[in-house]
Amino acid sequence: MSGAVRVCLVGAGRAGKVHARSLVKHVTAGALVGIVDPVPDVLNSTAEQFGVEARFASLEAALAWGQFDAVAITTPTFTHKSLAVTAAEAGKHVFLEKPMALTLGECDEIIAAAERSGVFLQIGFMRRFAPEFVAAFERIQAGEIGQPMLIKSLSHGPGLPPPWARDMAQSNGMLAEVNSHDWDCVRWLMSSNPERVYAEVANFKGAALGVDAPDFYDNAVVSIRFESGALGCITGVCPCEYGYDARVEIVGERGIMQIGELQGQAVVVCTDRDHGLVTPIHRTWGQRFEWGYIGEMEHFVHCIQTDTPPAVDGSDGRWAVAGALASTVSFFEERPVYLSEVLDEAWR
Amino acid sequence: MSGAVRVCLVGAGRAGKVHARSLVKHVTAGALVGIVDPVPDVLNSTAEQFGVEARFASLEAALAWGQFDAVAITTPTFTHKSLAVTAAEAGKHVFLEKPMALTLGECDEIIAAAERSGVFLQIGFMRRFAPEFVAAFERIQAGEIGQPMLIKSLSHGPGLPPPWARDMAQSNGMLAEVNSHDWDCVRWLMSSNPERVYAEVANFKGAALGVDAPDFYDNAVVSIRFESGALGCITGVCPCEYGYDARVEIVGERGIMQIGELQGQAVVVCTDRDHGLVTPIHRTWGQRFEWGYIGEMEHFVHCIQTDTPPAVDGSDGRWAVAGALASTVSFFEERPVYLSEVLDEAWR
Amino acid sequence: MSGAVRVCLVGAGRAGKVHARSLVKHVTAGALVGIVDPVPDVLNSTAEQFGVEARFASLEAALAWGQFDAVAITTPTFTHKSLAVTAAEAGKHVFLEKPMALTLGECDEIIAAAERSGVFLQIGFMRRFAPEFVAAFERIQAGEIGQPMLIKSLSHGPGLPPPWARDMAQSNGMLAEVNSHDWDCVRWLMSSNPERVYAEVANFKGAALGVDAPDFYDNAVVSIRFESGALGCITGVCPCEYGYDARVEIVGERGIMQIGELQGQAVVVCTDRDHGLVTPIHRTWGQRFEWGYIGEMEHFVHCIQTDTPPAVDGSDGRWAVAGALASTVSFFEERPVYLSEVLDEAWR
Amino acid sequence: MSGAVRVCLVGAGRAGKVHARSLVKHVTAGALVGIVDPVPDVLNSTAEQFGVEARFASLEAALAWGQFDAVAITTPTFTHKSLAVTAAEAGKHVFLEKPMALTLGECDEIIAAAERSGVFLQIGFMRRFAPEFVAAFERIQAGEIGQPMLIKSLSHGPGLPPPWARDMAQSNGMLAEVNSHDWDCVRWLMSSNPERVYAEVANFKGAALGVDAPDFYDNAVVSIRFESGALGCITGVCPCEYGYDARVEIVGERGIMQIGELQGQAVVVCTDRDHGLVTPIHRTWGQRFEWGYIGEMEHFVHCIQTDTPPAVDGSDGRWAVAGALASTVSFFEERPVYLSEVLDEAWR
Repeated sequence: MSGAVRVCLVGAGRAGKVHARSLVKHVTAGALVGIVDPVPDVLNSTAEQFGVEARFASLEAALAWGQFDAVAITTPTFTHKSLAVTAAEAGKHVFLEKPMALTLGECDEIIAAAERSGVFLQIGFMRRFAPEFVAAFERIQAGEIGQPMLIKSLSHGPGLPPPWARDMAQSNGMLAEVNSHDWDCVRWLMSSNPERVYAEVANFKGAALGVDAPDFYDNAVVSIRFESGALGCITGVCPCEYGYDARVEIVGERGIMQIGELQGQAVVVCTDRDHGLVTPIHRTWGQRFEWGYIGEMEHFVHCIQTDTPPAVDGSDGRWAVAGALASTVSFFEERPVYLSEVLDEAWR
Repeated sequence: MSGAVRVCLVGAGRAGKVHARSLVKHVTAGALVGIVDPVPDVLNSTAEQFGVEARFASLEAALAWGQFDAVAITTPTFTHKSLAVTAAEAGKHVFLEKPMALTLGECDEIIAAAERSGVFLQIGFMRRFAPEFVAAFERIQAGEIGQPMLIKSLSHGPGLPPPWARDMAQSNGMLAEVNSHDWDCVRWLMSSNPERVYAEVANFKGAALGVDAPDFYDNAVVSIRFESGALGCITGVCPCEYGYDARVEIVGERGIMQIGELQGQAVVVCTDRDHGLVTPIHRTWGQRFEWGYIGEMEHFVHCIQTDTPPAVDGSDGRWAVAGALASTVSFFEERPVYLSEVLDEAWR
Repeated sequence: MSGAVRVCLVGAGRAGKVHARSLVKHVTAGALVGIVDPVPDVLNSTAEQFGVEARFASLEAALAWGQFDAVAITTPTFTHKSLAVTAAEAGKHVFLEKPMALTLGECDEIIAAAERSGVFLQIGFMRRFAPEFVAAFERIQAGEIGQPMLIKSLSHGPGLPPPWARDMAQSNGMLAEVNSHDWDCVRWLMSSNPERVYAEVANFKGAALGVDAPDFYDNAVVSIRFESGALGCITGVCPCEYGYDARVEIVGERGIMQIGELQGQAVVVCTDRDHGLVTPIHRTWGQRFEWGYIGEMEHFVHCIQTDTPPAVDGSDGRWAVAGALASTVSFFEERPVYLSEVLDEAWR
Repeated sequence: MSGAVRVCLVGAGRAGKVHARSLVKHVTAGALVGIVDPVPDVLNSTAEQFGVEARFASLEAALAWGQFDAVAITTPTFTHKSLAVTAAEAGKHVFLEKPMALTLGECDEIIAAAERSGVFLQIGFMRRFAPEFVAAFERIQAGEIGQPMLIKSLSHGPGLPPPWARDMAQSNGMLAEVNSHDWDCVRWLMSSNPERVYAEVANFKGAALGVDAPDFYDNAVVSIRFESGALGCITGVCPCEYGYDARVEIVGERGIMQIGELQGQAVVVCTDRDHGLVTPIHRTWGQRFEWGYIGEMEHFVHCIQTDTPPAVDGSDGRWAVAGALASTVSFFEERPVYLSEVLDEAWR
């Protein structure tokens, strides 16, 4: 296609604004032409901020208008399957935030709908487009640290998740909502699927914060055995008030690699020798992965313009869902769980 | 004005491409609509890269076409005055790369031309738009480190400058070409003009590199006394093959602040305990100040759209030229030189 | 007691030399007066290096001489119980390297012998004396990061272990030989005993290095649930050729703390912008924990002089052995293992 | 000689305690056997702290007792010449704190006295024994960064200096008292003597702190041209309340090297994402150069034991005094000053 790719944003909340900003400020080949949100205040506030005229209370209404090429879906997880399938069936390319869906069955429905309609499906794993992650991946592929043996990936985030995101029934909890990125990252960087996981979780702040969702947890440690024989560990902490923390460490047969850092800006200040040096930390995911968010949207738009399949697709999203589900079974049943158990079950 | 600001790039070399990239990839409110360069290969290569149809061998030819609102001038220093005055007199807003001009008299001609025509003049001091420099400036203004007492600013860059840039007659040498940014930075961050400077220079690599420009130097140390009574030091090294290095350190009455760092990317690798940890360094100024370059062009375009004067204007550019000139007199005459000596002389 | 504490070193190998150096160069209140080693070359080489006259082929021979107050035992793990009990029964204070012993039963025999003889028993957990670990512990105790929720501790070391240390029957393998320090550290820093562990291990280099010990592994990830409800993760990699790596990261209810770093010396060099910054890494445990090794020996000598029980005793050593044993059962039986299972078993 | 080297400390204040601690805790080949101080409280407090019986109100009294091999002189600068000459003439080896003396003439008297008596004279430039400085020097010598072109060295210290140390007549001020180490460091690391200096100084805090010493300054920037043609910059700030800061940065023909860092301990904490990461800073020179202080005393004792001349002697001390004097002339006369002017004048 020629001309800017016209994108309709579905979900005008925090994640939606990040993508709106990318489209309006940085992705010159894309255009934000419409916004959908069922909450009028949220819809109008975001639409005003980004100067978008076409506003809709539902995806259906937007599709009735129809003057766009693609959707960017940033709504709660439990709505993903329905929205993505609807958009795909209407012939719109789909950019879908993580976690892809609640179940592997839902993932499969989305994948099938996109295939049937011949539209592209890209999952919002922006770390794959963050410059330091891209460089790290390429250096691992080039053999710089040898065969990867052990990976640790963490995502610690500030802020109590919204009610739906701490309800296992609507979101699969933190291991899906927060750690989706880790599930994708470790599989990508290790070039291997997880084979077996074991998870421990803990709930430290739920009571104090008045969370009454059953099975709520705010800390998790997951051990992973990969099909390659390598080992891994994913940790999640949310809410952690100290900042947004996303780092990876890999040990290969020839050496170690660290990706990411706590430091959020190269300004160091000391005004008190008893207190010490003070350096900004990454405060939010939007700020931490600014280039990653721009990059993934550029990629999506570029794929549509050049008719090239996205580098991060439904099968990647599905594996991240599988990791979250297997580790959830693990902590409930207090045993290591094979991914194959969960992958099979999906077809029930 | 409404609609995208139409910019014609004058100078299609390395600096030109950086601004072209900003306009084409990131500054959605601006449009790169024409390119001027007297060298056909350079002109066409850059124009192809950024998909620009309107190509001109001279600014005059471009002005004859005239379908643009502003120029971004990135040509050698000795051409700045003529081009900037011509563009301003044709009613075009002027974004002008540093150093502003060869002499203070030229600076004054440019400023006067812009004022006469009622167009904006912004100088290319991108560090003022780099997020860490902006944050640092605001924190200094807020009093976090108290009254600034001492500042060090350095710019060390890779690559032998082109012949004109190492010829004092066409460029004022490294203290202007490379250290312009430091001259602007220290004055901005200290909120004070330099009062007196003393410079030492050295030529370590010129002979080996076959440089026959008279008075060529590749290392410089400049001491500064500010009008506020504070002290400063600027150093320049070019060519330095280890990377592009731009850092500032300020000591105030209450503490210290460091801005910038050598590290270019948060990827740390170690594969040999006798060699040690390896971390990418900033390689080029384009990469080091990526956000700064985008930010200054966004600012320029925004100023035009909103009819607001740019935050970095001709008087700022003129002070940086004055600093370079005074320190040049200093090392030639081996004595401290007051800025007033140079500022007066300009009016001859 | 008055006068320097006279110490006889039992085991003149690498660890022995580290303690010899502390006693001869830094611990002015202690004196290295004798050395025991069954291998004449090793014995004489170390004794020459540190100027020690009294040399013995066995602890029994040294005890027959008897002119010392204490022993520092640095021999292979499978010899610890016999040597420590013999020394204690002879009335000598015992500094015993980690791992304390092969089984919890052996640990109990050592503890009982020291108690019967009224001598002190200190285990070689030098991290408890490393300045940054001491400071970190005190800050955690002071509540700076709130209630600890999640700890990660790693020990990655260069060099294939000696044959006995990779034979499960003589050493319990890497989780004991290398990760003893982590077992002690996490329990100390979290102020809680481990309750349940789950371990995954992998063997990446064994075949290439010609290791024929059954069940050899060179990578391990252990998940921990503490009695306090907190979570943890210990990882081990040995041999890892990139350096000696020992770091801890703790997330508490109020914040995060990192202890230790990869960087081994504050010298940063860059000579090639395509290669990047190079910084020394910690190369060996002796260098990494130089102050810790000095500190633990000062502490031991000071305890003897002042008749004060050591801060790190047999019960600490026993818990580290329990952690290694429980995680070994875990990876053999592919299930989470409660510490209580192992602790009970010890009394068979 | 055999047996421990017996050292008498002359000056029981802060610097005296640092050396006492080295001798008592770490330098096993040396013994602190006597202490001299004219102030009884200071004398007794330090002597108690380090368990020293022999206490004297004057060097003469100590020499009458005479049971020592060497002195370590840590008194105010204006007393150095007299004490050092007296000790040397009594046949005692002399360890003398920086600055060596007030004038080059005094330096020459000390050097001559030591030569006449055949005793060793070592100046307290501990940075030459700090592991990272030693490693850096060796790497520069090995050619790692090529021919050094430009060096920056800074010493910023907390605490208003004592009255004598801010009185130019008794101390030569900050450029001697604080920056002596920089003068020595740059000459050592560059393997070249300074040829010409230019200094700017400023007084920011004097009035507020009630300093009435004439010509007091608390900030200084000195430009240096070396005999080799290389350039340099020394800065001093005292008092600076943010910590004790001593760092060096060298650019050579092949690359850059940084020595030292602000960070004082590898513990990083974040408990507030709006505040950022907090890391301890070096608080005092005693803590910052702990290994350097131990190392220089070990060296002094070792030189005496092995009858080897110290690596840092009177000529090094004299050059540092010359640098301080030349830069003092420079800021008084507001002109660049050649070292030769000062070196000649000394012989008046």
